[in-house]
Amino acid sequence: MVSDSVNNYIDEHQNYFVQRLAETVAIPSVSSSAAHRPDVVRMGFWLEKELKGLGASVELRYPGKQQLEGREIDLPPIVLATYGTDPNKKTVLVYGHYDVQPALKEDGWATDPFTLVEDDKGRMFGRGSTDDKGPVISWLWVIQIHQKLGLDLPVNLKMCFEGMEESGSEGLDELIYKEAALYFKDVDCVCISDNYWLGTTKPCITYGLRGVSYFMLTVSGPGKDLHSGVFGGTVHEPMTDLVHLMQKLVTPDGKILVPGIMDDVAPVTSEEDAIYKALDFSMNDIYNAIDAKNTIHDTEKNVLMSRWRFPSLSLHGIEGAFYSPGAKTVIPAKVIGKFSIRSVPNQEPAKLTKQVVDYIMSEFAKLGSKNTVHVECEHAGKSWVADINSWNYVAATKAVQKVFNVTPDYTREGGSIPVTLSFQEALKKSVLLLPMGRSDDGAHSINEKLDRSNYIQGIKLLSAYLYEVSTVQS
Amino acid sequence: MVSDSVNNYIDEHQNYFVQRLAETVAIPSVSSSAAHRPDVVRMGFWLEKELKGLGASVELRYPGKQQLEGREIDLPPIVLATYGTDPNKKTVLVYGHYDVQPALKEDGWATDPFTLVEDDKGRMFGRGSTDDKGPVISWLWVIQIHQKLGLDLPVNLKMCFEGMEESGSEGLDELIYKEAALYFKDVDCVCISDNYWLGTTKPCITYGLRGVSYFMLTVSGPGKDLHSGVFGGTVHEPMTDLVHLMQKLVTPDGKILVPGIMDDVAPVTSEEDAIYKALDFSMNDIYNAIDAKNTIHDTEKNVLMSRWRFPSLSLHGIEGAFYSPGAKTVIPAKVIGKFSIRSVPNQEPAKLTKQVVDYIMSEFAKLGSKNTVHVECEHAGKSWVADINSWNYVAATKAVQKVFNVTPDYTREGGSIPVTLSFQEALKKSVLLLPMGRSDDGAHSINEKLDRSNYIQGIKLLSAYLYEVSTVQS
Repeated sequence: MVSDSVNNYIDEHQNYFVQRLAETVAIPSVSSSAAHRPDVVRMGFWLEKELKGLGASVELRYPGKQQLEGREIDLPPIVLATYGTDPNKKTVLVYGHYDVQPALKEDGWATDPFTLVEDDKGRMFGRGSTDDKGPVISWLWVIQIHQKLGLDLPVNLKMCFEGMEESGSEGLDELIYKEAALYFKDVDCVCISDNYWLGTTKPCITYGLRGVSYFMLTVSGPGKDLHSGVFGGTVHEPMTDLVHLMQKLVTPDGKILVPGIMDDVAPVTSEEDAIYKALDFSMNDIYNAIDAKNTIHDTEKNVLMSRWRFPSLSLHGIEGAFYSPGAKTVIPAKVIGKFSIRSVPNQEPAKLTKQVVDYIMSEFAKLGSKNTVHVECEHAGKSWVADINSWNYVAATKAVQKVFNVTPDYTREGGSIPVTLSFQEALKKSVLLLPMGRSDDGAHSINEKLDRSNYIQGIKLLSAYLYEVSTVQS
Repeated sequence: MVSDSVNNYIDEHQNYFVQRLAETVAIPSVSSSAAHRPDVVRMGFWLEKELKGLGASVELRYPGKQQLEGREIDLPPIVLATYGTDPNKKTVLVYGHYDVQPALKEDGWATDPFTLVEDDKGRMFGRGSTDDKGPVISWLWVIQIHQKLGLDLPVNLKMCFEGMEESGSEGLDELIYKEAALYFKDVDCVCISDNYWLGTTKPCITYGLRGVSYFMLTVSGPGKDLHSGVFGGTVHEPMTDLVHLMQKLVTPDGKILVPGIMDDVAPVTSEEDAIYKALDFSMNDIYNAIDAKNTIHDTEKNVLMSRWRFPSLSLHGIEGAFYSPGAKTVIPAKVIGKFSIRSVPNQEPAKLTKQVVDYIMSEFAKLGSKNTVHVECEHAGKSWVADINSWNYVAATKAVQKVFNVTPDYTREGGSIPVTLSFQEALKKSVLLLPMGRSDDGAHSINEKLDRSNYIQGIKLLSAYLYEVSTVQS
């Protein structure tokens, strides 16, 4: 069988793949730092050279400039690559990013963050190991392995690797929409390689994301900050109005109080309910993640549904009020409450904003205050959910079953991964997230790691996925 | 009459007094700046030299050291002076301060802040003119005038002039309590020269201050800050609990919701009510002061009673939450709400704290949250009110009537002036505040000024007050 020879090759050459990963980890492609911008570009060039070496056609797209640390600098290139153009094959678009989060040894890393170090448990520590260099370069190895074994890839591959994911993906959305009918026109499905297993033992496929609507609620009163000794008791204080409004938004157990806001939330289907029974997740996972036991719910299913498929409202803070340690007797003149709603299908941002604004204006009127209020949605991203019975998901499921002998968890994310929605909306093709790393990899933390087994089995998974895509009924 | 000759002398020599004020304004005795500390000390020495020149016995008391701008420096001296020790005369203790607020031309001053400049309306601009050099040195002129006229002072004078009032009066309280039965042992009454008229046309005597109890309300939940995408909906969020608790403290129209807290508020007497009818104050004064019209009350009396004689509760801000401009999707792990209650007679800080803590704990229990709460009073200062029918006030009232041909406003302050309470509690003698400047002097602002008429009439007032003290029935 093809898969046996591919998998054997991967097993036999795993030290080579680890060594190549070490090569990329050694390039400190930190996108948030102007000083590291040349390293980010160098990492883009590394991919270009490797891909060209494999015979892919490669284009570096420069999205423009950005302001960073007080100066204007070039954004790093988006690496677009095509490998195979056979009209009889399906075309799979894969996405990943080659930039990384900042990392300094003195942040608390046990080893140098830009030197890949493997311990005796097969944990390979290094910035970018799991987020997202391991997954990105694995696509290159899949091509290389097939060439070494004299095999054709069963699909055409298009690749889109960006260098700004950790810094807002500047320029990517424009490119996706612009190239939807051009560079990406033959794409049949999209696989995003930038996510993690729910737990540590079982692969997953991610099929949904919550959206987010971020609100600014401003209450203005006096023309300037006042001293509470002189003016306490005489003026309508904006902070008082603001906390009265903020507490009207959500209860201590997380119930959103905005009228009508739950009306459009898609009901839980029995199929969906069944997914939750199989998940590799326990209450201890969340207790460990939050370093406390103050969960609203006490069962795994309710915790995950609250995270993934029900909306939530969080109060983030207040701008304009006193925030330092110590005591200050100020009456702030203007305060801005910040809160956001994580939205879910089928909530629409525009309707949600109207519900929130109408409610706040109506609650403010009840306060009888002479202050003024203004509320607006500062930005909104839609939620996303895919049909796990569609052929792209069936293919990924079969690939997981073949490589891992287990049916994957079907997971969603509570946060947004905007590129997912961009591909979905621009290309109108099935998008899925097929993670390589584990929940405990510490993607943005010190001592980020990728397990050797996740890396090696992950390469097999990507290869297997392409075969399943090529044969699945679509 | 003695008063005629004194007043004539003052009128005839007013340019001399103005020139001497200019001399002191030229010394930039900014107590908050290490660079200006030598100037503060120089101003203390100036007072010592002048007082000794007048034959007073003077002691410079050095309260110790302080940390300022990262280094340890000496606190400026407290100038103690005695003029007259006749056991047959009353002894009046006067207090003022010789340090000033910072001032830079580039802050927006129309003229150099440390050069006294008089305009054609008799407004004498300069840092410290009204706060508090004009009032302080006027006591020296009262002595000098009597010497020039060959008159004895009708009372013994003790003086206490500090150089740290604008920076927390460090060291003063210790001295007051220590010297209560020593240096201050013969004191019969206290006159504080550091306050302002309520308006701009009518002198006042200040007979009350509110206290302040400052609270820290801490809600703790997860072990670290969380991302609202990943954890929104799954944990009890401390910010949610906190705004629910904070809005339970006070209504938008300033009503304090802590049970029992109003029980000890002294009722308004008819005598007190009458005071408010005579006050030089209009709604426009507060509109101008707050640069808005968002007052809770629409009548002068209610505004001033709310400021002076009823408690108020202000929410100052939150430590630990997101406070910057822009959007951040954080769930803060631990937030500290800051609020304070301005207390009034006969509220006792210890009882008030218990009422607040009991209420918050009981309201928190109702929230059904798994977070933890802690509330404590960070500091408390008592309120103060004097009997305006006591002999010290009768004397001051008569003095105002003689110099200004008007009965003074009897005012209180919404904020605390801690030295007042310290003298009251340490010496157990009648304390009053006898202002020289006007409400529009801009004590801590740019273009601080003292009107020539306030200065010159003020010197007359201080002299007249001493005569009235000497003859009033005590």
